[in-house]
Amino acid sequence: MADPLSLDEITRQLEDLPGWEHKNDKVSKEFTFENFRDAMGFITRISYEAEEQVHHPEIFNVYNTVDISLSTHDAGGKVTEKDITLAKTIESLYNN
Amino acid sequence: MADPLSLDEITRQLEDLPGWEHKNDKVSKEFTFENFRDAMGFITRISYEAEEQVHHPEIFNVYNTVDISLSTHDAGGKVTEKDITLAKTIESLYNN
Repeated sequence: MADPLSLDEITRQLEDLPGWEHKNDKVSKEFTFENFRDAMGFITRISYEAEEQVHHPEIFNVYNTVDISLSTHDAGGKVTEKDITLAKTIESLYNN
Repeated sequence: MADPLSLDEITRQLEDLPGWEHKNDKVSKEFTFENFRDAMGFITRISYEAEEQVHHPEIFNVYNTVDISLSTHDAGGKVTEKDITLAKTIESLYNN
């Protein structure tokens, strides 16, 4: 079970994650794409990584936008290292 | 461009769509699955139908749940026949 990160630690980690925000005990980012297909492709790529990391984001899609929010259920819904790891993976998918 | 449906017409249409609700000018339903993979498979199947109908739902996924909300942007964000058609398609995907 992962421990919740301190606010300072979350702030420090988000310095390496441009556009990600910490609010409501989650780290979140809204991604925008050319169209629905590209948005759906991104969600699909995220889904494989989520299964591999045994950690699943909240995913909200409307047409060409994808909102991702991460927190750790087993840590009382707080942000843990697992969320930072998955955020970094998602960020790298977006940039590749 | 589709015209907004009347409240009576929406109510009548939802009689054929068990579990679907009309609220905040949208028709919505929460679907639950065995696991994340099944939820993601459902989203993927919806995505092809959405492209074919040139009409896209709001999709919210957390692990094994998928919330779908439908309204028509071109009709001022109101519910139209396009939403009912897509809702029926999504319902049939869920049941097959």
